[in-house]
Amino acid sequence: MNNLATRILSSSSLPTPSLVASLSSFLSHRLIITSHRQQTFVRHVSTGVPELTKDRYKDVKRGNYTKLDKDHIDFFKRLLGDHRVITDSEECSGFNVDWIKSVRGYSQCVLKPKSTIEVSKILSFCNANKLAVCPQGGNTGLVGGSVPVFDEVIITTSLMNTISSLDDISGIAVLEAGCILENVENYVNEKGFMMPLDLGAKGSCHIGGNVSTNAGGLRLLRYGNLHGSVLGLEVVKANGEILDLLSTLKKDNTGYHLKHLFIGSEGTLGFITKIAIQCPPKPKALNVAYLGVNSFEDILKTFKMAKSNLGEILSSFELIDEKSLDVVSTYYGMKSPIGIYPFYILIETQGSNLAHDEEKMNLFLEKVMNEGIVLNGTVTNEDSKMKSIWALRERITEGLLCDGYVFKYDLSYPVKEFYAIVEDLRERLKDPEVFRICGYGHVGDGNIHLNICLKEFSQEILKKIEPYVYEFTSARKGSVSAEHGVGFRKPKYIHYSKSEAAISLMKDLKKVLDPNNILNPYKVLPQ
Amino acid sequence: MNNLATRILSSSSLPTPSLVASLSSFLSHRLIITSHRQQTFVRHVSTGVPELTKDRYKDVKRGNYTKLDKDHIDFFKRLLGDHRVITDSEECSGFNVDWIKSVRGYSQCVLKPKSTIEVSKILSFCNANKLAVCPQGGNTGLVGGSVPVFDEVIITTSLMNTISSLDDISGIAVLEAGCILENVENYVNEKGFMMPLDLGAKGSCHIGGNVSTNAGGLRLLRYGNLHGSVLGLEVVKANGEILDLLSTLKKDNTGYHLKHLFIGSEGTLGFITKIAIQCPPKPKALNVAYLGVNSFEDILKTFKMAKSNLGEILSSFELIDEKSLDVVSTYYGMKSPIGIYPFYILIETQGSNLAHDEEKMNLFLEKVMNEGIVLNGTVTNEDSKMKSIWALRERITEGLLCDGYVFKYDLSYPVKEFYAIVEDLRERLKDPEVFRICGYGHVGDGNIHLNICLKEFSQEILKKIEPYVYEFTSARKGSVSAEHGVGFRKPKYIHYSKSEAAISLMKDLKKVLDPNNILNPYKVLPQ
Repeated sequence: MNNLATRILSSSSLPTPSLVASLSSFLSHRLIITSHRQQTFVRHVSTGVPELTKDRYKDVKRGNYTKLDKDHIDFFKRLLGDHRVITDSEECSGFNVDWIKSVRGYSQCVLKPKSTIEVSKILSFCNANKLAVCPQGGNTGLVGGSVPVFDEVIITTSLMNTISSLDDISGIAVLEAGCILENVENYVNEKGFMMPLDLGAKGSCHIGGNVSTNAGGLRLLRYGNLHGSVLGLEVVKANGEILDLLSTLKKDNTGYHLKHLFIGSEGTLGFITKIAIQCPPKPKALNVAYLGVNSFEDILKTFKMAKSNLGEILSSFELIDEKSLDVVSTYYGMKSPIGIYPFYILIETQGSNLAHDEEKMNLFLEKVMNEGIVLNGTVTNEDSKMKSIWALRERITEGLLCDGYVFKYDLSYPVKEFYAIVEDLRERLKDPEVFRICGYGHVGDGNIHLNICLKEFSQEILKKIEPYVYEFTSARKGSVSAEHGVGFRKPKYIHYSKSEAAISLMKDLKKVLDPNNILNPYKVLPQ
Repeated sequence: MNNLATRILSSSSLPTPSLVASLSSFLSHRLIITSHRQQTFVRHVSTGVPELTKDRYKDVKRGNYTKLDKDHIDFFKRLLGDHRVITDSEECSGFNVDWIKSVRGYSQCVLKPKSTIEVSKILSFCNANKLAVCPQGGNTGLVGGSVPVFDEVIITTSLMNTISSLDDISGIAVLEAGCILENVENYVNEKGFMMPLDLGAKGSCHIGGNVSTNAGGLRLLRYGNLHGSVLGLEVVKANGEILDLLSTLKKDNTGYHLKHLFIGSEGTLGFITKIAIQCPPKPKALNVAYLGVNSFEDILKTFKMAKSNLGEILSSFELIDEKSLDVVSTYYGMKSPIGIYPFYILIETQGSNLAHDEEKMNLFLEKVMNEGIVLNGTVTNEDSKMKSIWALRERITEGLLCDGYVFKYDLSYPVKEFYAIVEDLRERLKDPEVFRICGYGHVGDGNIHLNICLKEFSQEILKKIEPYVYEFTSARKGSVSAEHGVGFRKPKYIHYSKSEAAISLMKDLKKVLDPNNILNPYKVLPQ
């Protein structure tokens, strides 16, 4: 870990005596991160497969869709060629299961189009023949939205992965839906830009899936959500019609802002094929601090001071509770670099001037430590060390899968109530089967990831958790799905966050855009 | 005007010798802004009124709506009381004309609801009786969207102006639609926050109108558009049903993101009654620079360097051409503080640390002056002087009205082609009737305001301008309405920026949300 005092002395501005004093006490607590595996995300591979969705969720009935037959397959093969129509059961199996292995379909057909025209012809055919389809990106979703429920034809974006353009002045990129987020990030980085979103799943997820699910991620606090960053979309409607909404303009008020219908509708209103997105300039300076505090109250105090002192350079403010850190300690041997505390805060800054950013960060750290709010911490601007700290946060999601079965909730609240659900459930679920209840997430966005871990799925425990978690959230006007979406697993819960009138309008829109209900059925809207 | 050298010497970091040298030469060109009227926006008052829209635009026919009669008026009076139902012709006249006096309706009824319930009852009644309505905010729109075309009942938000709440940690405000933008700005300023949008019309415009028209404004470059800032809406549908989409959460992925349907649809899909909006922290430091350059090419060079050097603190980058500045010189006696140049740039920074921001600004100015890109300039952080510089930019719109008749276009392009239309039209329109062709606007957003000034309206000149301007814009994949919207005056031109498939889907959505077409008819969508 970089030496904080050295950093300050080598910068152009000298610290004041009081700053040096406080930083010395800060450093005296500092530990070293020795080694960590550098790995942002891997698809979890396990020997077990979950029960078929149709068996586990018997109340969901297959719609009155046509069953796939040889004539359909022949049409697809004439259109795409033999190699881009997968019908082998073994090969199909990976596309039928979500990566957290919570749901499993039994589709016998995976299509790999390479162009918008091909997607259009596929959908036109499926719509005419009433074949249900399941659009799939990187299949990194957490609510069962990206795999079939029954035998829906899977259309994967995996071969639509061209970076079409990047404007060197404006930073506006045009991307095919199947581009992997991390690949795009690397590409735009080389040209002096960055992607406005970053996720733990960046090594696998597709930008089309990100947009379809309105993915939030780690830097929404700074760069806003995709409704702000996405400038245009190309979308294929259920009937195969291509909607060219692929504007690359920052301002365009000609008519209704249609692209937003497709951002966050999880492939149920249209199939996104291209995305125009505003990439901010790549920051010239990055700093990451990892802090230990005693209570959630102190987290809030630190957050308020970070907003005030770090201002426009604050790019992330993440909370990790002690039991969340245990996950990466247990399964990946990753340790807290500052010892054990009830809560950890990961703060990142991104700016255009390293000396200015370090000065802001140091003044901030001095304040929170002088006031006794932060008990210990470490700060770095070295790339490998920043990645090591980020890995502590990013690998929790993946590590939780090693626990066995995880009930995952992705909730948002007014920031003051961010952590209440974790404390509440620890009181409520004193059951030996439940061996971990932990929370981590994006304090700046009021978005907490609540996880309840068991060795294996238990209907009894589920009954204790649901609908309780949703009622708790609804009573606080929170969201029962802050960023993961609704997918297959949550349609019956969206009424906890949306009114009857709103859900009714959603259904009206679905009828307009997909009257045969072929696009990703059984997802998002309650039946 | 503040003395730049003094500012630098009084800040904590000393300038290097080269910086001092360049700033001395910078200062030697500096002039002083002596006095300016401090007035952000006034409704233009003129003795003349435009021809009735029904007479000027004879191709637009009144829809088959019910004509207002005494029974309708009696219903409204029972609901709102006598004083909130305006039927006096004189009193109605101000609500029938847009502020640039380009269109005029003849409504004989203006309703002033005070609550969402009242709006709901009004719309329910109008829908059942097939009475067309025109929602109106501050009536500061520029495309004739906010006044009736014929005799539509006007519903003004003027009495719905409560600031419902402001969260002191998150900065999330909940506002009634009729709040005047400047009043909200002042209110949130006192609590340490700012509004994420700012317009020349801030003294009159209503936040409900801003959201309905997806207003862009002066700081979109920094704070993004309203699709990003608006967290939730309360909307009344045409049939009177209240849609509660008033989430105050930064992340909420439960179902389709309905609020975006109403942002920018100009009151044709629903009547916005409340808005939840994310207010950023109020900056602790502001700087405004006003620079003179010789060519548009130099504007682009300056923009690229500003993005790189000012980074996260850059909040505005505005262009004013010489003929635009002439407007405020001629009509308001306002002079350029740096002498006459072909182009002026107004740069604003907003940040959390004055010393850091000044250092960034000074380094940037040193570079652009050393390289001979910027010929002259002045910079200030004094409030009254920053306002004086901003007034040079903000009062152009209003001043242009003094020219007589103005053909106004609000266009966006890829940034490299920002100014081409102005130069092109100056060649094309060498007609003595046309005495001014000028352009100003938001370089950072690729959004230029093109104005063509005549003593009075001329059909012959119009034919030379339209559809030429739209064809020119369409060929460059620009927008024929970047931020002003479509309103009454542009529906027949939206196909220059939107495909048939997109327009067709817009019409489908209109049918779902307003099957009787009572909401702001004749606007946005082509007949």
